[in-house]
Amino acid sequence: MSILRYDATTGDWVIFAPERARRPMPPESPRAAAPLPGLCPFCPGHEDLAQPEIYTVREGGAWQVRVVANRFPILRIEEDNVRGDDGALFRNMHGCGAHEVIIESADHTRILMQQPVEQIERILRTLQVRFNDLLRDLRFQALVIFKNHGERAGTSLRHPHFQLIAMPVVPRLLRMKQAVATQYFDLMGRCLYCDILQDELTANERLITQNEQFVAFVPYAAGFPYEVWILPRQHQPSFGSMAAEQVRPLAEVLKTVLAKLYHCLDNPDFNLTVNTVPRGDEGKDFFLWHIRVVPRLTTPAGFELGSGMYVNTVLPETAAADLRAAEPV
Amino acid sequence: MSILRYDATTGDWVIFAPERARRPMPPESPRAAAPLPGLCPFCPGHEDLAQPEIYTVREGGAWQVRVVANRFPILRIEEDNVRGDDGALFRNMHGCGAHEVIIESADHTRILMQQPVEQIERILRTLQVRFNDLLRDLRFQALVIFKNHGERAGTSLRHPHFQLIAMPVVPRLLRMKQAVATQYFDLMGRCLYCDILQDELTANERLITQNEQFVAFVPYAAGFPYEVWILPRQHQPSFGSMAAEQVRPLAEVLKTVLAKLYHCLDNPDFNLTVNTVPRGDEGKDFFLWHIRVVPRLTTPAGFELGSGMYVNTVLPETAAADLRAAEPV
Repeated sequence: MSILRYDATTGDWVIFAPERARRPMPPESPRAAAPLPGLCPFCPGHEDLAQPEIYTVREGGAWQVRVVANRFPILRIEEDNVRGDDGALFRNMHGCGAHEVIIESADHTRILMQQPVEQIERILRTLQVRFNDLLRDLRFQALVIFKNHGERAGTSLRHPHFQLIAMPVVPRLLRMKQAVATQYFDLMGRCLYCDILQDELTANERLITQNEQFVAFVPYAAGFPYEVWILPRQHQPSFGSMAAEQVRPLAEVLKTVLAKLYHCLDNPDFNLTVNTVPRGDEGKDFFLWHIRVVPRLTTPAGFELGSGMYVNTVLPETAAADLRAAEPV
Repeated sequence: MSILRYDATTGDWVIFAPERARRPMPPESPRAAAPLPGLCPFCPGHEDLAQPEIYTVREGGAWQVRVVANRFPILRIEEDNVRGDDGALFRNMHGCGAHEVIIESADHTRILMQQPVEQIERILRTLQVRFNDLLRDLRFQALVIFKNHGERAGTSLRHPHFQLIAMPVVPRLLRMKQAVATQYFDLMGRCLYCDILQDELTANERLITQNEQFVAFVPYAAGFPYEVWILPRQHQPSFGSMAAEQVRPLAEVLKTVLAKLYHCLDNPDFNLTVNTVPRGDEGKDFFLWHIRVVPRLTTPAGFELGSGMYVNTVLPETAAADLRAAEPV
């Protein structure tokens, strides 16, 4: 069972999950260790090793995408969002939420950028189905969808998968981004992210790939070398509102971006996050959902910890040119 | 030459330092590589390999503590804080600031917790001298003092050292912490950090060590396993205001904390940061400077990146009990 505690100095909640210390971790030298498909709970034939199934895409006899509960969840749907305290400044909350694993395919070794576009499309549709289903639980205030590729990015199970975490609070980072975007909207009457997208298209210096629905670029003030954002062209605050006809174009842009990162940086470890509004802001004008892909090439150190600022050793224009030039699939 | 760019979605500045990509990094398997004192620019006899000397503590013939400019600075004192833009949302600033290295002693292999208390005292005094001297440059708005111990913590040179970076802006993290503490002061009429310290002393569950001037504890909502804070007992917003008679007690508490972490976690990689107010807030009532020591035991992944929240697998009470029990020096 996990517990949330409130950090009175930042206004942020920290999740304490002592049981996760017990989860198996890969050996220290990640690239050297061979995968063990025979013992993988995400592989076909071993479904009984995984947690209960939540959702499946099945065409014909076999499954294409499978969603299961995380075996070492940081938050649990069985908990209630009861608050308490251990003193006036020491406030806590039970670890209520959800923690799901979206298994990208039956293939233990095929990474996301190697999947055919139609499989990436199935994965994205599944993410959206689970996202919208979890939002029906009124205890959940915000959802985070993410993917950890490689050990430097924090993955502990190699079989490619996404994760989805539903939270009983809105994280400070989301509230802060909302506040910045709301202030911009108050001043300008326009969505900050839509304006950034237009300015990136006009500048035409940091673009990587685009189609009729999505644009991928290295942002002007990227915090990490080769960080890439994928934005929808049309204003849309929530990932849950993406229209059916947008999913294929997103799969295409995402596959191209991941393939370019793979070829440009020799299969780098990376994190992918879906950034979207908290519950109740789906109709607001000030936010545009987007995907961030962050390669893990450098180690944030004491300066970043102490200042919260990032130091990036690769100019976004250089990173974008490298990615544009990288060999496609 | 570096440049700062403004991230319009967070209100934060990102530092772009392309020249730092050229700096030598240690090999991938850090523990295996032997130190090479003969080629170290921080070792006695090789002072000519380092950047120009800024400050030295010298008693007798040899130096005890030495401050030099960083060879690959993220900000430079020769730059001016000129602002510009590459479009309405794309604002930038020249990389004006300072980046100094405080060499802890002439000994290439002796880590901070192995130094005698009087040497730690010399190092802390030197940090304060440089901090107060750099604040005389009115272009610098905030200073960050930090230390990276070990490769997982981002160090690239083994000879033990601190770093000090002066910035032409106040980082968002500092502004945010100031805002939280100011709001608390508005409501309660007391310093938030002084109240946290009193509540930790009262709770008596997360304390590690203390003396007449300083208290070390694992905070109630620690973001990282075995994270430790060291707070002065008396209200004091700025590290620069620490009185001469406080330095020895701080050295004692710091040595004990680092020794306990060393014995408890087998010489873990860690970051240490000094958290203090920006220029001009030295006399304010709402902040208390403090030291944070954060062992690098886990890898922040997609969830942390997407939510800004931390997941901690060790309860602070457990971490504090382990550290209290750890063998002293």
